[in-house]
Amino acid sequence: MSENELVAWLRRRIRAAGSVQVGPGDDAAVLAPSPGSRIVVTVDAFLEGSHFPSGSQPARIGHKVIAASVSDIAAMGCYPSHCLVTLGLNEACRQEFVRELGEAMIAAAEKYGAPVAGGDVTSGPSPLVVSVTVLGETRDLSPVLRSGARAGDRIFVTGSLGGSLLGRHFEAEPRIEEGLFLNRDMGVTAMIDVSDGLSTDLNHIAGESGVGAIISETAIPVSDDARELEQQDGVAAIRHALEDGEDFELLFTVPAERTALLRESWSFDVPVTEIGEMGGDQVLIERADGSRQTLEPRGYEHTWSGQ
Amino acid sequence: MSENELVAWLRRRIRAAGSVQVGPGDDAAVLAPSPGSRIVVTVDAFLEGSHFPSGSQPARIGHKVIAASVSDIAAMGCYPSHCLVTLGLNEACRQEFVRELGEAMIAAAEKYGAPVAGGDVTSGPSPLVVSVTVLGETRDLSPVLRSGARAGDRIFVTGSLGGSLLGRHFEAEPRIEEGLFLNRDMGVTAMIDVSDGLSTDLNHIAGESGVGAIISETAIPVSDDARELEQQDGVAAIRHALEDGEDFELLFTVPAERTALLRESWSFDVPVTEIGEMGGDQVLIERADGSRQTLEPRGYEHTWSGQ
Repeated sequence: MSENELVAWLRRRIRAAGSVQVGPGDDAAVLAPSPGSRIVVTVDAFLEGSHFPSGSQPARIGHKVIAASVSDIAAMGCYPSHCLVTLGLNEACRQEFVRELGEAMIAAAEKYGAPVAGGDVTSGPSPLVVSVTVLGETRDLSPVLRSGARAGDRIFVTGSLGGSLLGRHFEAEPRIEEGLFLNRDMGVTAMIDVSDGLSTDLNHIAGESGVGAIISETAIPVSDDARELEQQDGVAAIRHALEDGEDFELLFTVPAERTALLRESWSFDVPVTEIGEMGGDQVLIERADGSRQTLEPRGYEHTWSGQ
Repeated sequence: MSENELVAWLRRRIRAAGSVQVGPGDDAAVLAPSPGSRIVVTVDAFLEGSHFPSGSQPARIGHKVIAASVSDIAAMGCYPSHCLVTLGLNEACRQEFVRELGEAMIAAAEKYGAPVAGGDVTSGPSPLVVSVTVLGETRDLSPVLRSGARAGDRIFVTGSLGGSLLGRHFEAEPRIEEGLFLNRDMGVTAMIDVSDGLSTDLNHIAGESGVGAIISETAIPVSDDARELEQQDGVAAIRHALEDGEDFELLFTVPAERTALLRESWSFDVPVTEIGEMGGDQVLIERADGSRQTLEPRGYEHTWSGQ
């Protein structure tokens, strides 16, 4: 199968996805947003060797790049609507590899309600590189920014953190319904997805909101993966939970008076945990012994837009 | 300057661009489309060595990647509104290089009315790779597709073609105003930008419209660059005009009864030339000696979405 034949296959495969007024096969895709809706849009680049190891299964890569990108829309508390992708292939990318990669991206995008509406393929000598654009809609909601946290707001996180590099990063599940619920029904004041690590992402919220925070080490939901990784590398599981990143859980702040309602009405499979409170002018962690330290933003920092 | 400092610089530089409700610094950008407008969106990937030579000046690369991407929105006869970019940098990308690349992208995006609203940066061992997403709006117009040409429609192209690889591809100017005029005032039936070469792009229109075409070799506006390239490589200038691509001119079809009006009301600096007519079931070229041949789609074919 030549590159042109591969491209033709991908185009046919996507054309079937529907829900797009004009899809692949024209100069641009044409989308009809919900009336009155604002558009949210994010782009992410994924590089072989940085965002997934060389030799990774194409189906795992395809799922991850879509899930991780859609997670940014979930973190805005908005509705994902469409994906567009660019693939930078190389000689080592065989037909079967590209088919599986394409099918996995298409399947993940449909699963998350954001069908692939277009893309571009290039070939060159580089490692595999995938760039994903995700569009979403606010519909009747306002997007939840990182900058809305206020002193006294309580800090929560979904799921458990750390050790995703053992493989969980490939199984990312964007918290779309949770994000919509938190936005629509809970009036959360700030939200971010934990992609760079809890320490870094909490600092993002604090920095953008102009208020400090304190979290309790003993409250942080440490994943089993983080504990397993501690056995392998001798780095404390709590540090993995704070710094590893790629958890794609939601970190958010909610006014103190709504925390009881939040706990009562939380009906999702993934747990939600209160880990601290906004306030002061520093980002601190209270250790198990009661001491307080600055929580440095350690972890991945490979983006210049936080997207 | 570390990667983080570079990212911070880019974020500040973009934040100043305005016209975006939420720009870089959150999980996603938030954009407010014109009421009732549909959204057009295109993605393109540009790879060092394929889309620009290694060692190219960053300012030239930055201009080209934005101009070539915006050209897809122009070819829909729509209004460009925002750009998002991902950069895959490598060790060889020094601070000054990235600054110049960034400034050129930001400047071009502003020039074309589509300010940069977000992005992502990665670093790895690969050649430089840039991926550009451009959003646009239909506002009160309908997008011009490739599929609307009818038998009897006349075929036109803006500018002159061929030899862009001598350097003109770096100076691409998307025909935004021309595309809007052709859509709004001329009722063009199909339109595409000449990125893959006239022979390929005319075949795109014919294939999507389900009708053949015939163009006249002697009518094709051959660029001076194509003639210069003929002197260098011995390949006929007309073949460069038909096959080189990266001209970023508009190729479009218009009902025969409106061609006179089109000529009279064309007020742009770039010339417009009638080169043929839609009809039959093959795509043909009439040579200078009156013979007719199939016009094979030869030229770049590196995209699977035409975007």
